[in-house]
Amino acid sequence: MIIVTKPDATKQQIEHIVDRIHEWGLRTEVSHGALRVVIGVIGPEESIREKPIAAIPGVETVTPVLKPYKLVAHEFRGTRSPVSIGGVSVGGKEIVIMSGPCSVESKEQIVSIAKDVKNAGARILRGGAFKPRTSPYSFQGLGVDGLKMLAEAREATGLPIITEIMDTKDLEVIEQYADCLQVGARNMQNFSLLKEVGRSKLPVMLKRGMSATIKDLLMSAEYILSEGNFNVLLCERGIRTFETYTRNTLDLNAVPVLKAETHLPVVVDPTHGIGLREHVTAMALASVAAGADAIMVEVHNSPELAKSDGEQALLPDELIDLATRVRAVAEAVGRAL
Amino acid sequence: MIIVTKPDATKQQIEHIVDRIHEWGLRTEVSHGALRVVIGVIGPEESIREKPIAAIPGVETVTPVLKPYKLVAHEFRGTRSPVSIGGVSVGGKEIVIMSGPCSVESKEQIVSIAKDVKNAGARILRGGAFKPRTSPYSFQGLGVDGLKMLAEAREATGLPIITEIMDTKDLEVIEQYADCLQVGARNMQNFSLLKEVGRSKLPVMLKRGMSATIKDLLMSAEYILSEGNFNVLLCERGIRTFETYTRNTLDLNAVPVLKAETHLPVVVDPTHGIGLREHVTAMALASVAAGADAIMVEVHNSPELAKSDGEQALLPDELIDLATRVRAVAEAVGRAL
Amino acid sequence: MIIVTKPDATKQQIEHIVDRIHEWGLRTEVSHGALRVVIGVIGPEESIREKPIAAIPGVETVTPVLKPYKLVAHEFRGTRSPVSIGGVSVGGKEIVIMSGPCSVESKEQIVSIAKDVKNAGARILRGGAFKPRTSPYSFQGLGVDGLKMLAEAREATGLPIITEIMDTKDLEVIEQYADCLQVGARNMQNFSLLKEVGRSKLPVMLKRGMSATIKDLLMSAEYILSEGNFNVLLCERGIRTFETYTRNTLDLNAVPVLKAETHLPVVVDPTHGIGLREHVTAMALASVAAGADAIMVEVHNSPELAKSDGEQALLPDELIDLATRVRAVAEAVGRAL
Amino acid sequence: MIIVTKPDATKQQIEHIVDRIHEWGLRTEVSHGALRVVIGVIGPEESIREKPIAAIPGVETVTPVLKPYKLVAHEFRGTRSPVSIGGVSVGGKEIVIMSGPCSVESKEQIVSIAKDVKNAGARILRGGAFKPRTSPYSFQGLGVDGLKMLAEAREATGLPIITEIMDTKDLEVIEQYADCLQVGARNMQNFSLLKEVGRSKLPVMLKRGMSATIKDLLMSAEYILSEGNFNVLLCERGIRTFETYTRNTLDLNAVPVLKAETHLPVVVDPTHGIGLREHVTAMALASVAAGADAIMVEVHNSPELAKSDGEQALLPDELIDLATRVRAVAEAVGRAL
Repeated sequence: MIIVTKPDATKQQIEHIVDRIHEWGLRTEVSHGALRVVIGVIGPEESIREKPIAAIPGVETVTPVLKPYKLVAHEFRGTRSPVSIGGVSVGGKEIVIMSGPCSVESKEQIVSIAKDVKNAGARILRGGAFKPRTSPYSFQGLGVDGLKMLAEAREATGLPIITEIMDTKDLEVIEQYADCLQVGARNMQNFSLLKEVGRSKLPVMLKRGMSATIKDLLMSAEYILSEGNFNVLLCERGIRTFETYTRNTLDLNAVPVLKAETHLPVVVDPTHGIGLREHVTAMALASVAAGADAIMVEVHNSPELAKSDGEQALLPDELIDLATRVRAVAEAVGRAL
Repeated sequence: MIIVTKPDATKQQIEHIVDRIHEWGLRTEVSHGALRVVIGVIGPEESIREKPIAAIPGVETVTPVLKPYKLVAHEFRGTRSPVSIGGVSVGGKEIVIMSGPCSVESKEQIVSIAKDVKNAGARILRGGAFKPRTSPYSFQGLGVDGLKMLAEAREATGLPIITEIMDTKDLEVIEQYADCLQVGARNMQNFSLLKEVGRSKLPVMLKRGMSATIKDLLMSAEYILSEGNFNVLLCERGIRTFETYTRNTLDLNAVPVLKAETHLPVVVDPTHGIGLREHVTAMALASVAAGADAIMVEVHNSPELAKSDGEQALLPDELIDLATRVRAVAEAVGRAL
Repeated sequence: MIIVTKPDATKQQIEHIVDRIHEWGLRTEVSHGALRVVIGVIGPEESIREKPIAAIPGVETVTPVLKPYKLVAHEFRGTRSPVSIGGVSVGGKEIVIMSGPCSVESKEQIVSIAKDVKNAGARILRGGAFKPRTSPYSFQGLGVDGLKMLAEAREATGLPIITEIMDTKDLEVIEQYADCLQVGARNMQNFSLLKEVGRSKLPVMLKRGMSATIKDLLMSAEYILSEGNFNVLLCERGIRTFETYTRNTLDLNAVPVLKAETHLPVVVDPTHGIGLREHVTAMALASVAAGADAIMVEVHNSPELAKSDGEQALLPDELIDLATRVRAVAEAVGRAL
Repeated sequence: MIIVTKPDATKQQIEHIVDRIHEWGLRTEVSHGALRVVIGVIGPEESIREKPIAAIPGVETVTPVLKPYKLVAHEFRGTRSPVSIGGVSVGGKEIVIMSGPCSVESKEQIVSIAKDVKNAGARILRGGAFKPRTSPYSFQGLGVDGLKMLAEAREATGLPIITEIMDTKDLEVIEQYADCLQVGARNMQNFSLLKEVGRSKLPVMLKRGMSATIKDLLMSAEYILSEGNFNVLLCERGIRTFETYTRNTLDLNAVPVLKAETHLPVVVDPTHGIGLREHVTAMALASVAAGADAIMVEVHNSPELAKSDGEQALLPDELIDLATRVRAVAEAVGRAL
């Protein structure tokens, strides 16, 4: 940690800063510049990361030298950590397509779409039973009934299931039906929920919040790993910017950065990332070229009757086309589908 | 609702759009322009707001005419709705100062600071017992013990208490101690939590999320009111932008806009809004001039030893100065302190 | 254009709105809803686009039906418009790599790098002679001497040259040396400059501003076309968001959107888009997969001695590797290199 | 300057970094931590600020200790620097209101409005003759004729004039008529223009760009001062964020920050900052409470016929009301009007 003092910091203030650091059990190295004093802090930085050093009179800036996350850091493992979702490995050579409708609407709907997405080459089925909706008057999902329908769709197709958890008190029931938990963008910093899924046996896909930095995403993942659950996938799904033409701004920069910063697999959701059906495939291809390990794509067999997000869902035939093109790009970058 | 078709929409597509609207029980009025067809939808817009009209082939844009919120809308009440927090009314002529430390750290700390903030003129005591922290390794709050200490501080000073709720399962215990629930920025779209506090007897202060639009904030408040709890305060606390000099960008535009759009009281938190101790007072004054009904300010009697956010907390003397200056501005804009 | 009135708009106000529209020579169609009146405006929308209709008492919102750009719109041409830069066609089947240093630093440097980038497969040479620098104390470019060195590099390699113009008064001299003008992100809404380059015979590459929406970019391009210069390329180079890990947020969503909205070729600059040398190649691949027609990449033979942007420049060997991998992805998406 | 190395930096790499620093004439102080090496650079930081140190192999981060601006820094003067515009001092105890229409439309219009704004208490007249418009098809201003009309309005009222310059080649003619140059938000990083106005005898009001950080704004002001023109005013006019309810997000945090960072006067433009006529006054009051030295407000005597920005212009009577209320707040914060 490096502390820079204000130009008008007094000798007493500087001594007081140094004393505080020593009290906390670390050593210091003080350099006097022309205008400012630089105090290097030597010793285990994590032991004082939480101290309000910037509140000490005379301090101008405090710059940590080490990263604030440990378990998720690439150095912690040194290799990648593929995660198995119901037997399907995400994070290895093969790109995995996760697909399904935004919401489970009926048994017929989810079983039929599950067959479609399996046929297109998807290997994991997505579908929401508990739905986070901006409006209290919107369809809120079928809840436990929706989970049961997902299980029937798994029965019918063999596809493992990923579904969203929104409340700590739903963990037990979701664990009975799902193969992977999804924490949505709006709950990325719901720390109670992160701790709770950190105690689950199921893998967790953590979606990046709309205004979360890459570092915030890693810190939220650190919550889950720090509770003992190392089966975590990170999902880029678009951030909120000033651009209004698209639903979100898909930040594909995050893909190579996350692959370098962490050992966890990286998923991209181009459907929410752009929010315009006709451009989802282009962004799926770009995601794979950027290095994504998996892509999550919404599909519906009758978008104009969907209970949520119909305007961004692909038709089953469009998913077949997407998968064909994803395969070509995957092979071009040394991966497979 | 107004539907505009694509330039290349076919006659069949346009008929299909019109048929769908009629199926849903509304009427249409179709105008043929040179390039596009405009379909006006006549009838109760809320009945089709959730329909994925943009997913119907041939549709280019769908523009709602009505606002998506009802209970929070200014029209719903026609007058302002002051909220009483333990007997202190927020939203009337008097500006209310809410103050206290970021976290409750000990009985001595909270009782001592409570006396300080009361002495400065604050009328509500804030203090966190359950703390949402970016890092799992940071101080997470004293939990129920913290709530008990807050109650002792209330006993000692008479100040009602506002404290944060992070998890649906903590509602019962927090209700035993607090006078007002706070839903933090990171949980503004934790819809399970919004529903739960919507069933509480306590008032709720809802903080704007870091990437939440004004409309998003109102929709989240609508969740609480739609469950029956009308005692809701809205709090602007800064949004996330590209500016890094300040911790957040305090969006004071939101104050007059919210005062016009809703009947609910508007609170501003300049402490998080700028995040720099030396500039908190300037922003508190600006908040009151913009029309805020209350301001929430963090105070600590020993910032450099605080367990969280020490760098932005005012000293008790600085709060006295702030209150004096806030009073002058309040009177200049026809309010009082 | 569709005008929605306020809930409390009076009969007189509505009549006044309608009268104004008629005065301006258009017709209206008025629908009375339960709460609001909707006034459809019929006739040539562009004739009233600039009227301050929102300023008329009683008006709540004004929604245009047509897009504000004409010449750049896809419909205007119906097909793509490849642009020739010194004989190299951008916007056809072949992906074009534009490369070179951030700044021209000396004749030796630019000639040597020009040979390197040609060897790697780049077909257009970039290099700045007039440099827009955040600080007045930074290297500002070699000016006309830099232009002459670029011309010598072209002589030595046959590569056409693209270079930035910052001031209307430099057009004449730059036209003597360059094959393509570049308007930088910071000047994207320097409308005087846009008009000036609109009168040039040279093609123009227009970079997206840091806070420019896709629509803003198209409107700025419309300025150039409206002056008669149709040889315009659009360049996505990253927008400014809250993310600080990367220099900018490369908005690859803009690629498929621009390809659908306009007939102009689309270039992506992954170097500025991510700003981190080790991740430029991943983003170049993603750009091509998303549909880019060309990519612009900075290269330096001695980055740690570069006079600007050394930290994001690839080494010549890295460009060779990038080109090899770009070729594979280009072929996977039906293009070539 | 502080350099932190990568965890896997080799001994050779660290020696090479140190050698480079020494070559550039500065000294180093090297601290070996458990994981990383920290290299403190001792000596005049500005001499190596531009070196691409981050491009040297083994370097992870480079953190400057000093600020990149000198002439605009508060320390440079130690006191505030009021600027005189045609005899009206901005930056002293008195708050100055600058007002007028967005565009000069005719002699009658500008003279009439000039009288209105003078009557309301405004002391400087604004009005655009060269207009930066998003669309090439929008009214572009009356140019030199507009300047002449402004001069007639000055004649009629005695109010000094501020008007926008968009192109280096217009400086000479504008200098003949105006009392203060305005550089608009879209040209804040038009460095050619900044240098040109830096050589003018007239004061310059520099508006913050839509995506410019506070530091960017100061660096652009530094351009002007570094050419010799110290009569510079900084204007906050709203930044671009994800919020769409308002035209921009007025960043009032910038006011106390700028007052602390620089000696230059700070102006706020609430009209563009919120873009909604009914809320301009609230934001003007907030601006003054936050510490602004002047406010710039658009006024029109017939907004619905204005050639630009009618929807955000106040009526003359509304300006009178605004001035009355601004006076009260000014006095409450120890200023005057």
